[in-house]
Amino acid sequence: MRSVSIIGVGCTKFGEHWDKSFRELIAEAGMKAIEDSGIEGKDIQAIYGGTMASGRFIGQEHIGALIADQLGLTPIPATRVEAACASGGVALRTAYLAIKSGEYNIVAVGGIEKMTEVAIEEASFALGGAGDQETELFHGATFPALYALLARVHMKEFGTTEEQMALCSVQAHRNGMNNPNAQFHREISVEDVMNSGYISSPLKLLDCSPITDGAAALILCESKKAKKISDKAVEIVASAQASDSLGLTGRKSLLELAATRIAAKEAYKQAGISAKDVDFAEVHDCFSIAEILAIEDLGFFKKGEGGKAVEKGKIQLNAEVSVNPSGGLKMGHPVGATGIKQAAEAFEQLNGLAGKRQVKKAEIGLTHNVGGSGATCVVHLYKRL
Amino acid sequence: MRSVSIIGVGCTKFGEHWDKSFRELIAEAGMKAIEDSGIEGKDIQAIYGGTMASGRFIGQEHIGALIADQLGLTPIPATRVEAACASGGVALRTAYLAIKSGEYNIVAVGGIEKMTEVAIEEASFALGGAGDQETELFHGATFPALYALLARVHMKEFGTTEEQMALCSVQAHRNGMNNPNAQFHREISVEDVMNSGYISSPLKLLDCSPITDGAAALILCESKKAKKISDKAVEIVASAQASDSLGLTGRKSLLELAATRIAAKEAYKQAGISAKDVDFAEVHDCFSIAEILAIEDLGFFKKGEGGKAVEKGKIQLNAEVSVNPSGGLKMGHPVGATGIKQAAEAFEQLNGLAGKRQVKKAEIGLTHNVGGSGATCVVHLYKRL
Repeated sequence: MRSVSIIGVGCTKFGEHWDKSFRELIAEAGMKAIEDSGIEGKDIQAIYGGTMASGRFIGQEHIGALIADQLGLTPIPATRVEAACASGGVALRTAYLAIKSGEYNIVAVGGIEKMTEVAIEEASFALGGAGDQETELFHGATFPALYALLARVHMKEFGTTEEQMALCSVQAHRNGMNNPNAQFHREISVEDVMNSGYISSPLKLLDCSPITDGAAALILCESKKAKKISDKAVEIVASAQASDSLGLTGRKSLLELAATRIAAKEAYKQAGISAKDVDFAEVHDCFSIAEILAIEDLGFFKKGEGGKAVEKGKIQLNAEVSVNPSGGLKMGHPVGATGIKQAAEAFEQLNGLAGKRQVKKAEIGLTHNVGGSGATCVVHLYKRL
Repeated sequence: MRSVSIIGVGCTKFGEHWDKSFRELIAEAGMKAIEDSGIEGKDIQAIYGGTMASGRFIGQEHIGALIADQLGLTPIPATRVEAACASGGVALRTAYLAIKSGEYNIVAVGGIEKMTEVAIEEASFALGGAGDQETELFHGATFPALYALLARVHMKEFGTTEEQMALCSVQAHRNGMNNPNAQFHREISVEDVMNSGYISSPLKLLDCSPITDGAAALILCESKKAKKISDKAVEIVASAQASDSLGLTGRKSLLELAATRIAAKEAYKQAGISAKDVDFAEVHDCFSIAEILAIEDLGFFKKGEGGKAVEKGKIQLNAEVSVNPSGGLKMGHPVGATGIKQAAEAFEQLNGLAGKRQVKKAEIGLTHNVGGSGATCVVHLYKRL
């Protein structure tokens, strides 16, 4: 069986890019990744791009061809993949399978979203298309409302507190201080979170990830070839994806995102490891409660003990497991780009290139990307090749 | 190298489905394909779905998960693929690569679009997202205008006539009479086409494919396994995809869709055949001129001779090459579904199940699916396993 490695990464700064177009963000991330990998554009045999709602955000579909065009890489095959906020992670898995198929040896995979071109209400409505339009969005349930419901259930069942959730955001802002591409560079306190206005009770403004523009790109290469052309190659040792009901009404339990649990189990099996072997993880913390669910569903802590683990500092940098050394989604969540940026962070951490946010013992990394309220989840595991 | 076959197909009727939702169309096509293949839902290991602009048409993204949910197939991986009007064909290729990778043996691939939920102007604007928003749509160039430009260039260079283009539509309507799933069942004359109002000169109403609701689905299976479980298996003997500039301004020539030529050349090479070996082809005739470009770019006729070939009846049923025995896109073009419906037609033709539209010697079939004005093209070739 062929193996797949990452040989180069590129990210734009995450933030409000009033001065850069969708195309310019693609070009910036793509060119950085090509340069980082040491290959030339002409070596790339196919492109996969993750974007959630470009049709709603900028009136443009057909993003695969746009990327190929923008990077001067036509006529190679170029494909857009969409799985809501997991578009990036699923694009990565799709590109990974394309190399495994034997048809390609070198593939570029990118993620992009430009969310600030529309009014906030329109952005909220576009994002609502990640959930169940008929049973949720149509009735006014936007994304903060869905995760607020998950938070309420977790609080009731396990005694998780608003302060524990607030701590997730505090840690994200702290880690983000060391990430030059983060949308925010500002430390906050639990009190700041508690005093920020309710968006959908119990979730407050500072429990939520922001609206962001940004792009990220990776160059993937078949591992034997990767070994020859790169001294930074990072092998994707597991790739797993699972689905669940689009809306929360279809779930067996609201205490977990089952798709995370299922994808993680499969990923650990593929890599022949267990959750306790993971040194650092970039998890999908679109809301603070999502981070607590993630660290439980990924098996780092028992179900119901996520809040307490956060309180005890167990997921801080270089603690039991370093969760979101980059600052996570709280430091910018351009939805289609997030899954790719997570993989880029894993690449840098495993190469010891993460600067002040470097995890000390970084041998096995995990990325976890969620679409909607958990209808798609994709988990990847990485090791130095 | 693993080989991939189709073992079952399902299509809804193409038309204006005021009485059926997006979800119901998915369920109908998906269940038909599962039933046709003889497998059970639980045998399916992954789903790929092609949709172009569900965000714009029905306010719903995250279509992969929606399909898995709707068919009761969670928690298997489910991924949406988008490449404008080639979304279906590219989804097919993506699913094909997924099986080739060795990760899956049985995969469902579908295509869907529900285009009648919005006003025609909104549909036109959504479809414009297949071209270059910045250099085309923003300035008012919707899709008929782009293809009208291609028609004008072809007419000027090669003497192609409006009557020759009209004949493409006449033939499409004639073939469509024998297709129970066609949107129209009405024969038309060259005069009817010539007298239909100009949409964008020289293209008239009857030169254009319609706005359509519809879905189509296939069950793909690794060929060794396919041989054991199906006596109807059709092998995908070639799969090729190419890209080009998103907008027409970036093209080297407007006399061809270069991506078609490049993908076709690659497909013939993979299958070890040439254009003259193809018995029938489902080509992407979103406009009558597109059919003339296709039969040239696919190598059936020399560049510039497509119009004359149509006039001489060379692409009629059982003539030199049977083009669009189903009636093609003129008989319904639910954009994301089209590429899958083409493959379903190839399956039925190769199995001798196409009823009154059956091609007599149907041994090698080709499908050709184009995104936008040719920025994506995907070509597949099929034979009985």
